[in-house]
Amino acid sequence: MKIMVCYDGSGASRSALRVATKHAKAMDAKIYLVASMEKGTEDEQKMIQQLETELATTKEKLERDGIACETHLLVRGMTPDEDLVTYAKEQGIDEIAIGIRKRSKVGKLIFGSTAQYLILNAHCPVITVK
Amino acid sequence: MKIMVCYDGSGASRSALRVATKHAKAMDAKIYLVASMEKGTEDEQKMIQQLETELATTKEKLERDGIACETHLLVRGMTPDEDLVTYAKEQGIDEIAIGIRKRSKVGKLIFGSTAQYLILNAHCPVITVK
Repeated sequence: MKIMVCYDGSGASRSALRVATKHAKAMDAKIYLVASMEKGTEDEQKMIQQLETELATTKEKLERDGIACETHLLVRGMTPDEDLVTYAKEQGIDEIAIGIRKRSKVGKLIFGSTAQYLILNAHCPVITVK
Repeated sequence: MKIMVCYDGSGASRSALRVATKHAKAMDAKIYLVASMEKGTEDEQKMIQQLETELATTKEKLERDGIACETHLLVRGMTPDEDLVTYAKEQGIDEIAIGIRKRSKVGKLIFGSTAQYLILNAHCPVITVK
């Protein structure tokens, strides 16, 4: 079994990782920790380096806990939405975990567009975590 | 661990039940199979009877498979959305599974309003299944 976690360093994506870890332990699954970036500006380069470090640290931590983990930083010129859906299909992922965190200007929780796109377009079940 | 399945007899809700069953087996969880109706018209009364029968049959089937199951038909005068979120909180549910099935007039998959409401308002992770 393969569980993919959409990771962007946010608190919500860390919550998604926690839920995925619980599932991975129970179902003896491997975690695919995936971040997707459109490359480009210098700021994005810094962000990419930071994400790479975070992915590596998280992988180490999971493996110390006995959970198999692969990390992937997708920088393929697609939007993150398409990128994540395509990658999940290519890898034969069984479940996707993603954080929900976007708030409107008045503080109401709304969908991030990536979460919405994944739920409607991924080939497998999607777990949303607040 | 407690997994709630939002059941309305649709194919999508049966898919959600399949995913929840797999999780329940792996995590030794109990399934709360829940349907919510606003009571009222005669048609709704028929629908309620039909759902009651389906819930009972499904509970039997799960229990034969060694999975603990409770069924609940919520008819409390709230909208299904509020009803399901309130019930999940009252019961201390750990995960909610719900089917996504609504299609727009041009056949594009869109969110059912209940799924959207649950994802944004439930206190726990929500698994959406197509």
